[in-house]
Amino acid sequence: MIQKLSSDERTRQLAKLTGWQSIDGRDAIHRHIEFADFNEAFGFMTRVAIKAQEMDHHPEWFNVYNQVDITLSTHEASGVTERDIALASFIDSITV
Amino acid sequence: MIQKLSSDERTRQLAKLTGWQSIDGRDAIHRHIEFADFNEAFGFMTRVAIKAQEMDHHPEWFNVYNQVDITLSTHEASGVTERDIALASFIDSITV
Repeated sequence: MIQKLSSDERTRQLAKLTGWQSIDGRDAIHRHIEFADFNEAFGFMTRVAIKAQEMDHHPEWFNVYNQVDITLSTHEASGVTERDIALASFIDSITV
Repeated sequence: MIQKLSSDERTRQLAKLTGWQSIDGRDAIHRHIEFADFNEAFGFMTRVAIKAQEMDHHPEWFNVYNQVDITLSTHEASGVTERDIALASFIDSITV
């Protein structure tokens, strides 16, 4: 079973990512991204969706027009795991 | 400029839709939909995204795994208009 990251390990991993932050009151990480328009935002979401399905690890996300809010957490570990870091790293890799 | 629907007109239009409800404290309509899995949920979102772009009228929506929460409102009218009803009708037409 996958284990959630220790506090130190999470801090260390977050420092390598771009724009991800811990969420107050919840063991999860969050990033807000703004795109040029809806086309760009949904194109991004489609790339993440395909990757998420490949990883069998899915985001919680909200979109309105050019804005996307993404929350990552691992349900079965009740917290942030290496799977969340891997998906966050992918997201960073396709985002400016 | 597009006008928001009167209270009576909105009630009349909502009665024709499936599963849409007014939101307390906000001039918007909402529907929650559950799918079999993420593939089905994101497939649905992709169809709505293409339609929304065609209509130049976009949803606010949240997705986690097989669940989608959609909120419709027309920014420039500060409320629910016929554009929201048209997008909601399309959503109903592609949803069981």
